[in-house]
Amino acid sequence: MGRVSRRTPVTRWDTAARRSTRRPDAVAVEEPLEIRVDGSPVTVTMRTPGHDVDLALGFLLGEGLIGGVDDVRTAVHCNDVGTDGRPTFNVLEVTLRDGVPAPDLTGRRNFGMTSACGVCGSASIDAVRARTGAELLSDRTQVSAEVLVDLPRRLRQSQPVFERTGGLHAAGLFTAQGSLLAVREDVGRHNAADKLLGAAARERGWPLTGTVLVLSGRTSFELVQKAWAAGVPVVAAVSAPSSLAVELAQDAGMTLLGFVRPPHLNCYSHPERIVLATRSASPAG
Amino acid sequence: MGRVSRRTPVTRWDTAARRSTRRPDAVAVEEPLEIRVDGSPVTVTMRTPGHDVDLALGFLLGEGLIGGVDDVRTAVHCNDVGTDGRPTFNVLEVTLRDGVPAPDLTGRRNFGMTSACGVCGSASIDAVRARTGAELLSDRTQVSAEVLVDLPRRLRQSQPVFERTGGLHAAGLFTAQGSLLAVREDVGRHNAADKLLGAAARERGWPLTGTVLVLSGRTSFELVQKAWAAGVPVVAAVSAPSSLAVELAQDAGMTLLGFVRPPHLNCYSHPERIVLATRSASPAG
Repeated sequence: MGRVSRRTPVTRWDTAARRSTRRPDAVAVEEPLEIRVDGSPVTVTMRTPGHDVDLALGFLLGEGLIGGVDDVRTAVHCNDVGTDGRPTFNVLEVTLRDGVPAPDLTGRRNFGMTSACGVCGSASIDAVRARTGAELLSDRTQVSAEVLVDLPRRLRQSQPVFERTGGLHAAGLFTAQGSLLAVREDVGRHNAADKLLGAAARERGWPLTGTVLVLSGRTSFELVQKAWAAGVPVVAAVSAPSSLAVELAQDAGMTLLGFVRPPHLNCYSHPERIVLATRSASPAG
Repeated sequence: MGRVSRRTPVTRWDTAARRSTRRPDAVAVEEPLEIRVDGSPVTVTMRTPGHDVDLALGFLLGEGLIGGVDDVRTAVHCNDVGTDGRPTFNVLEVTLRDGVPAPDLTGRRNFGMTSACGVCGSASIDAVRARTGAELLSDRTQVSAEVLVDLPRRLRQSQPVFERTGGLHAAGLFTAQGSLLAVREDVGRHNAADKLLGAAARERGWPLTGTVLVLSGRTSFELVQKAWAAGVPVVAAVSAPSSLAVELAQDAGMTLLGFVRPPHLNCYSHPERIVLATRSASPAG
């Protein structure tokens, strides 16, 4: 259970006091779990480690792939190891009792069909992390903290349906100077980001160099992966990032911000792109 | 764009004023979209209709399945029709320019591999809705509004990691009298529900008749589907449900609550399970 949250260094800007401080903060751990049934991969889900057997049981029951707890003979982590040679506990192998039919995956959506091979190999999990995006480490974009801290409010102002339903995520793309380029809404966080990146690509081409992606919710590994593919150097979210979002942003050379709520913002990676405007610049409040 | 939000009748309880009122309210629309590339289904996503071409482009670009907007020749909705004979606009067909290689889906996770057939058939989308759960229409569970309105606070109290990270969803299972049975947390809403249902199934068996599922966030179609499979008659969430969550709960015979924030709660389906305690019962505040 030591892996449910993880401490990571955070640079916290206070735009009212015009200063930044560096301190450790806790983020929720996100890691892939591959669930196998009788040796066949059924799904890979990005989850917080812990209670993995409950997760596998609940998934198989809730999706109607088994009929009861008694259908399961064993549910144990495989002996897969990570690049550091230590067990990852990221593959869970379920075996069914004799006579229980194999789960029927026909017509199921969103169940990852993976290229994993070997009894307990982690090929599919490695594949999740193997993709790389645009070159960001040499990106010299600079954004003022005063501009950044105000972007979620401006995203919300441009989000008409949320006001009526309270049920939509939003994603917005801004220039480094804070000009709004596009906003999209969706019940799904990833869909909102996909719609926004697609709309921006039609307008501006691909990749979307030099822009700031603003998200209304939390930041997952997959959202950072999409932003990286899009060449976006700065991602700013209203809520928390996951551990894997932070790790990927660090590796990718992306500036990842969370809890962007005036007058504060937290930076989890590559703070060198953030500047405090000089007082004479008199940023809008 | 008329399908971004939809009005639905809501019964709103005010536990302070000890009364309920019925009125229409807007919910965000959630419907499946199947994205096909050159005739092959690539994914089915539950999305809010509108900007579907942006969604398909952004998805294919962000996942690295195409290299630029110019790779796409056409992106149009298919002529699929729903059970009412009207177009659903829920299948989008992308064709690639000559010479652009087909997307490599090897090793990709969470891309729905569907059983759809035919050029523009909606078999995979029908399959999303075809599953049924436990019999709930005859379930006679009764829950007091005063108990219900307090459950999100008690869920939060039982959620230690959120306080540290601000980044975890929670799901809790309660008896109809408000006793806590189990709580689970995860970076993913669906994972938190899976963990909880699996833990409860180990303890109590399956289905989980007569219980109340409490969710820290929004309620999607998939979460209602899981609760239905589990035989849970009452689902109460802190935030909004989607249109498809409401429709499925109505069909399933499930009581679906949203915006459960003292002293109010909104009921979107089957309000007959909710009662106001008599004053002499003096519910805890």
